[in-house]
Amino acid sequence: MRVEDIDTPALIVDLDGLENNLDRYQKYFDERGIGLRPHIKTHKCLAIAHMQMRRGAMGITCQKVSEAEVMVAGGVDRDILIPFNIIGRQKLERLVALARRTRLTVAADSEYTVQGLADAAAAAGVALGVIVELDCGRTGIGPPAAAVDLAAKIDQAPGIELRGIMTMPATLDQRPLIQETLALFDKRGLPYPVVSGGSTPGAFNAHQIPELTEYRAGEYPVGGVGHLKGGTHSVEQCAGRVLMTVVSRPGEDRAILDGGSKSLSGATYREEDGSTSMGHIVEYPDARIEGASEEHGHVDLSACKRKPGIGERVQVLPVHPCPCFNEHDEIVAVREGEVEAIWPVDARGRIR
Amino acid sequence: MRVEDIDTPALIVDLDGLENNLDRYQKYFDERGIGLRPHIKTHKCLAIAHMQMRRGAMGITCQKVSEAEVMVAGGVDRDILIPFNIIGRQKLERLVALARRTRLTVAADSEYTVQGLADAAAAAGVALGVIVELDCGRTGIGPPAAAVDLAAKIDQAPGIELRGIMTMPATLDQRPLIQETLALFDKRGLPYPVVSGGSTPGAFNAHQIPELTEYRAGEYPVGGVGHLKGGTHSVEQCAGRVLMTVVSRPGEDRAILDGGSKSLSGATYREEDGSTSMGHIVEYPDARIEGASEEHGHVDLSACKRKPGIGERVQVLPVHPCPCFNEHDEIVAVREGEVEAIWPVDARGRIR
Repeated sequence: MRVEDIDTPALIVDLDGLENNLDRYQKYFDERGIGLRPHIKTHKCLAIAHMQMRRGAMGITCQKVSEAEVMVAGGVDRDILIPFNIIGRQKLERLVALARRTRLTVAADSEYTVQGLADAAAAAGVALGVIVELDCGRTGIGPPAAAVDLAAKIDQAPGIELRGIMTMPATLDQRPLIQETLALFDKRGLPYPVVSGGSTPGAFNAHQIPELTEYRAGEYPVGGVGHLKGGTHSVEQCAGRVLMTVVSRPGEDRAILDGGSKSLSGATYREEDGSTSMGHIVEYPDARIEGASEEHGHVDLSACKRKPGIGERVQVLPVHPCPCFNEHDEIVAVREGEVEAIWPVDARGRIR
Repeated sequence: MRVEDIDTPALIVDLDGLENNLDRYQKYFDERGIGLRPHIKTHKCLAIAHMQMRRGAMGITCQKVSEAEVMVAGGVDRDILIPFNIIGRQKLERLVALARRTRLTVAADSEYTVQGLADAAAAAGVALGVIVELDCGRTGIGPPAAAVDLAAKIDQAPGIELRGIMTMPATLDQRPLIQETLALFDKRGLPYPVVSGGSTPGAFNAHQIPELTEYRAGEYPVGGVGHLKGGTHSVEQCAGRVLMTVVSRPGEDRAILDGGSKSLSGATYREEDGSTSMGHIVEYPDARIEGASEEHGHVDLSACKRKPGIGERVQVLPVHPCPCFNEHDEIVAVREGEVEAIWPVDARGRIR
């Protein structure tokens, strides 16, 4: 089957681009001696997670217990980090059950979270690792003295094992925070086998924070508009695309695609001139997806010399691959226009 | 089971609020003699679509063929409008197959679309109605003379039946366009049994466009932040909510919820002061969801006297219910805190 035979909209992944990304990021981390722990929240797909593990990933990152359940059930079960405060009886019961089936580490930024983890792990008699999330502006505990106090509580709690710290993201300006915190860990004699940083845009700067033992990156396999503009990915390396059809040309400079926010997600990219776009059309790089309703992509063609006709099919790079992939049940895996496989987006919609 | 027993995040619908909305919108349209044709793209749920039909809806609106397939298969099969240009062999084959199982009408705004519809309907020997979409800024054909030329082509084409016109939205300023177009229809002797307007925010103004024979409204059953601010829905009438747990309190004025754009969608609401929010917290109306990553809702508590603790659960009204419902596989139907049913979001993810 050729890509031309696929009905639209459809999420496709170009296998050459995907494999190139998997190889080059793995090589970067291998050469620096930093563990690569891919975040599967981007692709949510067992097939891609297995490709990452085969290339040398140390384990994976999942944002939710339910994502980890899908991965473990599908055989991606070596070593999982859930960098999230797991709270509430139902999730804690599932978490400790999962800890019997994989090496599991979770993050915590409060005594409330730590107490719940400790109680659940002790009751279940499982080994559960915990790392302290430092405050970098989203979740996290600060200042460093408070983080280390929390670490000491984790270290003393029965049932759970202190494994270190994490930051999100891990840009160079976070290094002083990491260093200050680890100095306090040393002072208190607390262990930190794991120093985990993350986010794809800064991945190639990871070696400039030598404290990092591992790195969480999600978007690198498939890229997106931000990666294209940021220079980490060429158009070819932006492997995740949404195939769409032009269904209307209501004016000389207007085109309507048959996919909108339900195909691309609602994520927008802000250009340097202040304008926004919701995707990049590979075949018409001068076109701008200026907006979208759920099932309509609104394209401004005013900068295009050549313009698409009704019925023409185009490939659109999403702004943010993670929510884009979450809109789809399937990924059509394509190489040189030939469909090699159709993969389920196994962990799509796993929010609990 | 009580709502307290549900793990978070979870999409809930308050049944009292839902039924109140279904009743009052149906009553408004019944009293004005305008057909209500609910757009199921909001809830995507057979249970709610059947409730709408039982209350007197004339039929339903679906945005995609696949949504209509789900509805027809589930018994919501009286009369369906798909206000979308259906293009491409695969969809046209499914469309004409569906036309054997329900009274079906689709929109067109180009000769390209009309030709495809006519060929497919003639080949299949089915009755397929077509209405012309007028240009109101998204899809649609303009000016009126062009719309009427297209209508004449539909009228003459074998296989398809001209049924009238549609606009999206149908605000008062579109009335002159509707009137001018229909005057030209009359001049040419073209039929227009259907004059279809749409969008929930303007629904209660529909009677001010007496040309309308029917109205498409999607969001009215469940509301959202825009409806709350716009005054069409009270908090109680905003029946669609996402139940979430506070998982972190990284600062005095900050809280993090366990749901972000993967629970609420990425839709944002712009307040009059220019600030944006991604949802309204029922229990903390002065809190502002200032942003979200996929699994984190970032809450600014600076305007709140009382502040939630870690582990506390809250109900969040989404900004835009349609993409929010599309993030979820299930709807928990609740009345006075008691879970009455768990409904599948049957047409979730149906983008083709």
